[in-house]
Parts: sequence; C-alpha cells; structure tokens
Amino acid sequence: MAAEIGPHLKDGAIVSDVGSVKAAVARDMRPHLPKGVHFIPAHPVAGTEHSGPDAGFPELFINRWCILTPLEDANPTAVERLSTFWRMLGANVECMTAEHHDLVLAVTSHLPHLIAYTIVGTADELSAVTRSEVLNFSAGGFRDFTRIAASDPTMWRDVFLANKDAVLEMLGTFNEDLSKLTRAIRRGDGDTLFAQFSRTRAIRRGIVTIGQDSATPDFGRRHAEPPRPMPRPYASDE
Amino acid sequence: MAAEIGPHLKDGAIVSDVGSVKAAVARDMRPHLPKGVHFIPAHPVAGTEHSGPDAGFPELFINRWCILTPLEDANPTAVERLSTFWRMLGANVECMTAEHHDLVLAVTSHLPHLIAYTIVGTADELSAVTRSEVLNFSAGGFRDFTRIAASDPTMWRDVFLANKDAVLEMLGTFNEDLSKLTRAIRRGDGDTLFAQFSRTRAIRRGIVTIGQDSATPDFGRRHAEPPRPMPRPYASDE
Repeated sequence: MAAEIGPHLKDGAIVSDVGSVKAAVARDMRPHLPKGVHFIPAHPVAGTEHSGPDAGFPELFINRWCILTPLEDANPTAVERLSTFWRMLGANVECMTAEHHDLVLAVTSHLPHLIAYTIVGTADELSAVTRSEVLNFSAGGFRDFTRIAASDPTMWRDVFLANKDAVLEMLGTFNEDLSKLTRAIRRGDGDTLFAQFSRTRAIRRGIVTIGQDSATPDFGRRHAEPPRPMPRPYASDE
Repeated sequence: MAAEIGPHLKDGAIVSDVGSVKAAVARDMRPHLPKGVHFIPAHPVAGTEHSGPDAGFPELFINRWCILTPLEDANPTAVERLSTFWRMLGANVECMTAEHHDLVLAVTSHLPHLIAYTIVGTADELSAVTRSEVLNFSAGGFRDFTRIAASDPTMWRDVFLANKDAVLEMLGTFNEDLSKLTRAIRRGDGDTLFAQFSRTRAIRRGIVTIGQDSATPDFGRRHAEPPRPMPRPYASDE
C-alpha cells in the first residue's frame, strides 16, 4: 500500500501509521517513502473492545498516552508537529524506539489479550462445567476477561504475527511466574501466595493515582436497576 | 469457630456460611453442628475488588446468582426459606453439590484471579520495561487485570489453599490451551489464532445478553473530563 500512496504525497508531508506494532511496519515502509516525506509511526494507547470510526468518542485520547517511534534520521520539526497534533487531541506524548515500543506493548497489551483469549476459550471447552454455568457465574471475575477477548480477531491475529519475538519473550516470563504460583498452591505454601497477592495491589493503586483507570469499584460498572420496589426486610417503619 | 457458636443456636435455626469455596467448609463444619440446626452453605457470586461492609451497596445482589450447596440430608423447607431470603435481595438462586460448585468457581473466578495476580506480578518484575511505562501504557489492556489483582490477599490465599484440586485441574487445561496458541505464534500460524479469537466473542455476547455484564464499551468506564476547552482544529467557525 505504501508503494501506491508514496507518489501522491507532497514534499514535506508527514505520514504516520497508527497501530499496535511498530518495528515491522517501519521496516516494511522505509523502502517506499519518497524523498522529503516524513514517516513517523505513532500509537495512541487508547480505545475500547470495539473497532472502526463509530467506536470513537470525543474524549477518547484525553489523558491517554500516544507513543511516537520516529526513525533515527527523523526530522525534529516534523516530530514536534505530530506531537502537537496529538497533544491537541488531549493526549500525552512519549517518544521511544520502535523496538522498545514493541516490548512495552507486548506486556501492557499483547500478553493480556493473549491470556484473555486463552482463558475464555478454556472455559468454553470444559466438559465438567456447562457454557450456561460459565455465563451465569461470570461475575466472579471471568467476565472481565471476556471484554478484551471480544476484540477484533483480524487485528489481533496480525499483532501476534508481527510482534512474535517480544510476545514470546513475555510469555516465557509469565509462564515461569505462573509455575511458581502453581507450585505454591500444590504445596499449600500460603506465605508465597500471600506475598504475591499483596504486592500486586500497589500496581493497581499506581494506575489509579496517575489517572489511567477509575478509582470507582468494579470499573464504575453501572448497578442493575431493581426490577420492582425492593422489600425492606429489616426496616422498622410500622 | 463452629464449635464455639454451636451451643448458642436455637433448634430449627438456619446457619449459612457465605464464601467462595464450599466442599472444605462443609466437611469442617459438619461435626460441630448441633442437632436440629440447619447448615446450608451459600455463595452469592457478586462483589467488587473491595471487601468488608463498607464495600456493599443496595443493588449488590440484583440479577446476580447465589449458589446454594445443601448437604444431602438438608431439610427442604429450610433450603426454601434461605432461597427466599436471597431472592428478596434481588438474586437468582441455583442449588448444586459443593464439589460441583468448587469446580464451576475454579474456572469462573479462581483461575481468573490467579492469572491476573500472575500477569500483574510479571509486568512489575521486568528489567527491560520500567514500572512507570507499565502504569502509563496500561490502557492497552493490562489495567483490566489490575482490578481483580487488587482483591483481598488473605481471602484469596485461603481460596487457593481450600480449593487446590479444582484449581490445579483448571490450570492444567489453561496451560495446554496457552501452549497451543504459543505454538501458533511461534510458527506464524495465523489461521489458528484467527479461529480462536473469533470463537471467544460469542461468550462475551452471551454474558451481555443474559445481563451479567454491561453492553457499554469498556465496562462503561467514565471518560476523562477535558482538562481545558478542547481546541477545534477542524472547525470552520470563522
């Protein structure tokens, strides 16, 4: 596609792809870029489980981060203009290499998606537990995973094919950590479990503190409306 | 504790524990139950990442499921009275054996919590990616996992110690499924990835359809307020 678009670009134009994997895209684009055109990959880390223009909303990028991965020979003025563009949409901007971006996103986005896709599939294939039981009792934690496991399959297939090395590296570390906890469960080692479960709370607090998630319990999910006036079994209003 | 409470219970009293693991509790309680007292374990599958009385709210149980696991010799009238109690709080009620409950919850609640605790720990221990990068770019999917990984460590340690067998069984299946997807990534097998990623969407749809999660994108998280009047780069209002 870059080969087709290239000839139509004016001298001095800034071209930016917007996507979840960077190193592979930069490598594929580079040979097709006309002289005088600035190519600056960008990745706004924002969005929902829905895709396409209709899934957008005006506040989508506010206080989210947009990562730019300019090539080594990028024009600083062009990078600054693109940064300003994203800041005007409400985003914070950070620059890093494409390779580091792919590693960071492997852990903050790609691995979580792979795990979510896996566990939702696991639950659906059990013979001892029915699908209707999985759905009915999903409020115990499982339903959280189903949201990102409902993301666009085409996009996510391509993410894993394009960012294979970083994802496999993160998977290796994740598997070691899961084995450690599995062993603790098997041996009845409550201290190891308690230590791990206490440590992870700080990360949640950090994310809420910097405004990357809501402090409202349960993501601020709306409570169900009572289907009828609720009885007041303990009220003493006679 | 059951041994201490037992003598104070009136004949015909209904006693119910409320917790996430059933078979071990029933086994431990049984020898201490005075004659004429009905013991009926119950598990309302509802709640948030917060614990304790202050974390409750009036709609907490509405359209959530409460699972009762009466012992084989349970008194049907007592079971019906306890079911009515839960229905008056807005819950749906289902009865099953304690053993089946523990298997169902292992997949819909315990495994998701273990995976979330693991991945949040993995992200925090990487040397190539800083903690501040993990926090800043968490909106790519990771932040979803931090919510349940912020649950009460004492309670969750005890859940894994008490429901060890069912959790280990589910972990075995999960690991097989994760290996299958890892192999597909390593081999560049896009068809296997696409097939898995398409299948899991139906589960999300099912959960939303039966009212166990909101259809609003991103769990209905509130959008950030613009910190200042937003610029209108494309507006033609001059």
